[in-house]
Amino acid sequence: MRRRRIYEGKAKVLFEGPEPGTVVQYFKDDATAFNNQKKGTITGKGVLNNRISEHLMLRLAEIGIPTHFVRRLNMREQLVREVEIIPIEVVVRNVAAGTICKRLGVEEGTPLPRSIVEYYLKNDELGDPLVSEEHVTAFGWASTQDLDEMMQYALRSNDFLTGLFYGIGMKLVDFKLEFGRLWDEEEMRIVLADEISPDSCRLWDINTNEKLDKDRFRKDLGKVEEAYQEVARRLGVLPEAGPVDMQGPQVMQ
Amino acid sequence: MRRRRIYEGKAKVLFEGPEPGTVVQYFKDDATAFNNQKKGTITGKGVLNNRISEHLMLRLAEIGIPTHFVRRLNMREQLVREVEIIPIEVVVRNVAAGTICKRLGVEEGTPLPRSIVEYYLKNDELGDPLVSEEHVTAFGWASTQDLDEMMQYALRSNDFLTGLFYGIGMKLVDFKLEFGRLWDEEEMRIVLADEISPDSCRLWDINTNEKLDKDRFRKDLGKVEEAYQEVARRLGVLPEAGPVDMQGPQVMQ
Repeated sequence: MRRRRIYEGKAKVLFEGPEPGTVVQYFKDDATAFNNQKKGTITGKGVLNNRISEHLMLRLAEIGIPTHFVRRLNMREQLVREVEIIPIEVVVRNVAAGTICKRLGVEEGTPLPRSIVEYYLKNDELGDPLVSEEHVTAFGWASTQDLDEMMQYALRSNDFLTGLFYGIGMKLVDFKLEFGRLWDEEEMRIVLADEISPDSCRLWDINTNEKLDKDRFRKDLGKVEEAYQEVARRLGVLPEAGPVDMQGPQVMQ
Repeated sequence: MRRRRIYEGKAKVLFEGPEPGTVVQYFKDDATAFNNQKKGTITGKGVLNNRISEHLMLRLAEIGIPTHFVRRLNMREQLVREVEIIPIEVVVRNVAAGTICKRLGVEEGTPLPRSIVEYYLKNDELGDPLVSEEHVTAFGWASTQDLDEMMQYALRSNDFLTGLFYGIGMKLVDFKLEFGRLWDEEEMRIVLADEISPDSCRLWDINTNEKLDKDRFRKDLGKVEEAYQEVARRLGVLPEAGPVDMQGPQVMQ
């Protein structure tokens, strides 16, 4: 079966799906950080993120947050609805970590006075700059109504995911969401898109504060693969041991 | 007369005022740019900004925007109400210039799709980072109500000042406002504070696009003093030629 490749991103490849309006998301093991300045491979990451994102998107759909997710196809692929991606990354922060520390002079690990929702423009050339609602609406990247909806979904996701991770001994420090527009019979809807995984979340062990996310790769902390496995294991979605699913062209075609 | 110095900023010194709840703003000729990395003197700037800011604050007060301004005292000093400064700089942009160009990849001089209001945290150590309403309210720097009021005042000021400068052949490209809280009989009010001058506005000649503001200093364009004089002249507040008012300790006491 030959499929047309639509787009290759840093961690995923998108192919045309089997029916109109669908897309196949293929999860790679490639990892990048610091706006592409650091590149590497996290063996097995694609397989795990495919499962983790499937699980989290399904749980969010169950509480009424619409997502692009349709179904997982195989170890590295999932079928999703085709959407028009809104070029804004929505970041929800509960505890200070990453860029906010240097930016606002807050020490890593400081609980924020309350959850903070940030918008970043998806633009590698500009280094994904922080933007505010004013920029987003003035330049027409999204409307006020779109942003209101995205923020509501982001805050509800935060409440739910904070609880879910708390239940398995992890602190949801922060996470990034992407949204897309899709049209059902002329009606535009905004749905959660992209993925939710240790690539896009900061997750700390609740007792030891051990990092169980991509920061292990960013900061060269070692045991990177093990962290992704641990998250999948605690979520109950670790694939059974079997023949190693290596990333390779036989899967990509 | 000895007065207690309350605070020395980059372009002004604040002294205790003659009666409780007042402050004397002394305008210096010192100029800084790029977060203090560039320092210099613009001879006569203090005298001109004292007049320009007096004029603009009075005109804004006339259209119902409350300000801290009481009256001008002399060449370099004005009496203002004592306020608690809100640590947020409010920037209104009509045309792309300065940091927004690099940040969002817009060419200088591009008219923005609509006026954009930005918030920056007043913090030299952090380089006055851009922040959004979320940061401001989460960290308690100002409340949502405060921000709503500040934004309304900023947008009204923009409309009025855009018209005023248009009338004297200048384009108001962008400007920065600061606000303070003051208490009248237990009631808190937000008022315009600090100054409005070519230090805090970008003003371009409407025909030639010649810069008539601090960018002449920032970018070493020459004729810096002349630009400030030109703005004062067009506003009708250029002091008559007289003995040069040099900045010196006899004024400062």
